[in-house]
Amino acid sequence: MKYGIVIFPSKTLQDLANSYRKRYDPNYALIPPHVTLKAAFETDMNVKEITKKIEDIAKKYEPFTLHIRKVSSFQPINNTIHLKADKTPELEGIYDDLYESLPGEKPDHPFVPHITIGQKLSNDEHSDVYGQLRMLGVEHEEMVDRIHLVYQLENQSWTVYETFRLGKDHQ
Amino acid sequence: MKYGIVIFPSKTLQDLANSYRKRYDPNYALIPPHVTLKAAFETDMNVKEITKKIEDIAKKYEPFTLHIRKVSSFQPINNTIHLKADKTPELEGIYDDLYESLPGEKPDHPFVPHITIGQKLSNDEHSDVYGQLRMLGVEHEEMVDRIHLVYQLENQSWTVYETFRLGKDHQ
Repeated sequence: MKYGIVIFPSKTLQDLANSYRKRYDPNYALIPPHVTLKAAFETDMNVKEITKKIEDIAKKYEPFTLHIRKVSSFQPINNTIHLKADKTPELEGIYDDLYESLPGEKPDHPFVPHITIGQKLSNDEHSDVYGQLRMLGVEHEEMVDRIHLVYQLENQSWTVYETFRLGKDHQ
Repeated sequence: MKYGIVIFPSKTLQDLANSYRKRYDPNYALIPPHVTLKAAFETDMNVKEITKKIEDIAKKYEPFTLHIRKVSSFQPINNTIHLKADKTPELEGIYDDLYESLPGEKPDHPFVPHITIGQKLSNDEHSDVYGQLRMLGVEHEEMVDRIHLVYQLENQSWTVYETFRLGKDHQ
């Protein structure tokens, strides 16, 4: 099975992201707006073993603030336009722990927590859309108190297997 | 917010359902295949209060077998074609408890646990598609050990808020 680990932000933030994704993200219908903590990985590992590991990691980190300050782009690496989130010790810790304890190599590029709002655009589209969106003021804060293990179906869409609340008190 | 409570079955069953939903269910892209335990309900109730109630209900019921035996239709009430699941004491108990402890009226029609594979078809399409599908042998059993609280976004799609494992040992 192919798994991934993500944060689904609040409805407010998801609705905002979807208003752009609808037009600019071909994955719009495959998964709700999210922050990827561990990219898609294929494994035959027993799902109970996977959930146990994530549970242990989730326990180590208390709920934290997700702070979005701007629309950004990964150009020249790729033309993914995204809502960039500030790094926090919790985001970096969870990211590192997940890559250490589960199958799947860490990507070459450094961890930039974000919510994708546009991708697979042509260069012209990218300049055009990014030119418009970067001028938007985005300033949003919210608490993150849970992470989600998702798996991919044959049609490429993703289903949630389980949610994990952060912090010692929530287990 | 608008909430719902569902079971997401295994990948195998979801892939099977999606192979039909793709063509016959306009909600295909809005939510993965599911068994509805509590239909969409609008409430201002605090989400922590909602999750506490579902947690208490989930604890009362042990994991159980979901048994699918046939393709069926709700005609003449409506032309929803579905994989019909056998009733079990757990399904009926969870259904009754959810309606008793959360906002939203019980529907008039009795509870028929099912996974929708086609809906909003014209009468001609319905006869045609149902005529083909009812002849398919469907015989599938799997364990259900969790239920999901979902909420609806502005674009009508659904996001998982939290999963609840069934049974005393899993809390």
